[in-house]
Amino acid sequence: MNQVYNFSAGPAVLPQSVLAEAQSEFLNYKHTGMSVMEMSHRGDTFLEILADAEQSLRKLMNIPEEYSVLFLQGGASMQFAMAPLNLMNHNNKADYVETGMWAKKAAAEAKKYGSVRIVASSADKLYTYIPAITEADVDPAADYFYITLNNTIYGTRYPTLPQTGSVPLVGDASSCILGETIDISRFGLLFAGAQKNIGPAGLTIAIIKKELIDHPMEITPTMLQYATHAKNDSLYNTPPTYGIYIAGKVFHWIADQGGVAAMEQKNKQKSGLLYDYLDHSRHFMGTVEKAFRSYTNIPFVLPTEEMNHRFLQLAEQQGLYNLKGHRSVGGMRASLYNAMPLEGVEALLHCMEEFEKTI
Amino acid sequence: MNQVYNFSAGPAVLPQSVLAEAQSEFLNYKHTGMSVMEMSHRGDTFLEILADAEQSLRKLMNIPEEYSVLFLQGGASMQFAMAPLNLMNHNNKADYVETGMWAKKAAAEAKKYGSVRIVASSADKLYTYIPAITEADVDPAADYFYITLNNTIYGTRYPTLPQTGSVPLVGDASSCILGETIDISRFGLLFAGAQKNIGPAGLTIAIIKKELIDHPMEITPTMLQYATHAKNDSLYNTPPTYGIYIAGKVFHWIADQGGVAAMEQKNKQKSGLLYDYLDHSRHFMGTVEKAFRSYTNIPFVLPTEEMNHRFLQLAEQQGLYNLKGHRSVGGMRASLYNAMPLEGVEALLHCMEEFEKTI
Repeated sequence: MNQVYNFSAGPAVLPQSVLAEAQSEFLNYKHTGMSVMEMSHRGDTFLEILADAEQSLRKLMNIPEEYSVLFLQGGASMQFAMAPLNLMNHNNKADYVETGMWAKKAAAEAKKYGSVRIVASSADKLYTYIPAITEADVDPAADYFYITLNNTIYGTRYPTLPQTGSVPLVGDASSCILGETIDISRFGLLFAGAQKNIGPAGLTIAIIKKELIDHPMEITPTMLQYATHAKNDSLYNTPPTYGIYIAGKVFHWIADQGGVAAMEQKNKQKSGLLYDYLDHSRHFMGTVEKAFRSYTNIPFVLPTEEMNHRFLQLAEQQGLYNLKGHRSVGGMRASLYNAMPLEGVEALLHCMEEFEKTI
Repeated sequence: MNQVYNFSAGPAVLPQSVLAEAQSEFLNYKHTGMSVMEMSHRGDTFLEILADAEQSLRKLMNIPEEYSVLFLQGGASMQFAMAPLNLMNHNNKADYVETGMWAKKAAAEAKKYGSVRIVASSADKLYTYIPAITEADVDPAADYFYITLNNTIYGTRYPTLPQTGSVPLVGDASSCILGETIDISRFGLLFAGAQKNIGPAGLTIAIIKKELIDHPMEITPTMLQYATHAKNDSLYNTPPTYGIYIAGKVFHWIADQGGVAAMEQKNKQKSGLLYDYLDHSRHFMGTVEKAFRSYTNIPFVLPTEEMNHRFLQLAEQQGLYNLKGHRSVGGMRASLYNAMPLEGVEALLHCMEEFEKTI
């Protein structure tokens, strides 16, 4: 088999060494005679895996003691409901910045449970930039202020986090967690689906300031209360054990690579190569305003649909998979998460060059 | 390594051939050059895996077309909220039979959303039997009638399903799905966490009559609406892809073994051997009334705590793991799910005999 590179936006490429190690112990984890998949979530072996995953993540992200780290299910989409159900219970209102489809869905979900104000939106330019936010834009009586840190579909990121004063900042970090340094102390709640930089789909991580945990609305299902999971160390019911196990291995891999700062450096380097190519290409073109370019999700287009299609065919022939852009943007999108090696980007650039020669 | 047998109540033993096959294709599924864990949930390869899993389950359980089969997250505990949020929206009341901790938790959750009547309870005898239910016990105006088919902790099962007339029957089948024949046409909704007879924790299956899908309460989070997942073929957001892939393999394994009827036969045989031993032992004793004995979860005790402890130690030395009973019952519990081979039960009986000789 030839080497392939998987540019999927998620579920996405995982580190080869992590997968190889998981494969080697798939049938018999540490001489237990069992697969991790078969282990009781209340047994000593899994409890060690869970504790190690939490400690590793705390260390990687420098998470202070006053935050709980929760291993949940349901993806970011479930967090769209959990955030308002748990946090919107003081003044029953929240501020949202609409920077794409996911932020829009999050705001729509929150509207079921309280008053939602769209503080700013970049819908006017198809979400190709991040609106400027000053502290004057923040309602000081809002229960929280919501942002999507990195917009997977549109390829934008906040160059700086909004100043929200005493209003808790809530952030969806699904596509940038562990790919760049995030100052968790700026957030009341940060969450992420695992299936980009963390591990397999089906695991969701929420990092929440403990003082925000205990005020869910009465209608909140037990399973959607952060308190339920915080009080039970993510073991209220059976958690997605195998996903947590793989996530723990990914955390160790990141630490071995030099930690999150090193990941950010590498992601900047990888995306920088692609952005540089796009900026100098006569045919390929990035779709995002330069100041707001994501380090990991890079949408780009050719002048015609026919050319996009032809390029995608060539890429696939060369083992460069899942480069098709989201239907709302079109063209191509390269997702360069932590586990995408530099060689993958080089192979993509090589393919782009080759394609341009045929034009 | 010596052979070990894992009697865990869940996550639990999985078929060795399924695990071996998954291991062999862990890094490279069907020449894609990718792990299933890395694949986009919207790519052709995963769509095939998902469609095959659904079709295989439909065939195994003989699920009629008027039912949706949904691949969800959150475990049975999430279903405790989803059931009332989606079904209790006509007369806002439901009937529950309390046959253990899980039924009790389900009823408590439903009380948040409407009027709950405990029709019958076996709490008076520590849940060691299933109360008799006649159709006269069913409130014809209830939105549904709720049962736990097999009670994992206490080791009881319904010998026959209650007759509920036109009231939809809702069942938690977490520990008996695919382990015995279930007539799905008797149910409005049947659900199960995957981590016993299906696959890894983090996947939940709900089988729901289509006519019941479209009436969620307004406060229901989008992700907790059956309609959301039914309309999107379980792809509203990223599902637990790897769990679905393993589940699909387990479904094929069951079909290869002769289907659910053959599984039931095998489970009756395995549990029969253990019950027979318990009935004739001078020291070991089953805790459940004979008419209500589970085919798969068998709690049993020795006369003293000290003896229980000593037996558990001996069992562990012989590679018989996770036999400790739930703290609310004490003693031992052997879970003999589909993937537990007959040899595992024989090894357990051998250990019990050996222990009795020392007394």
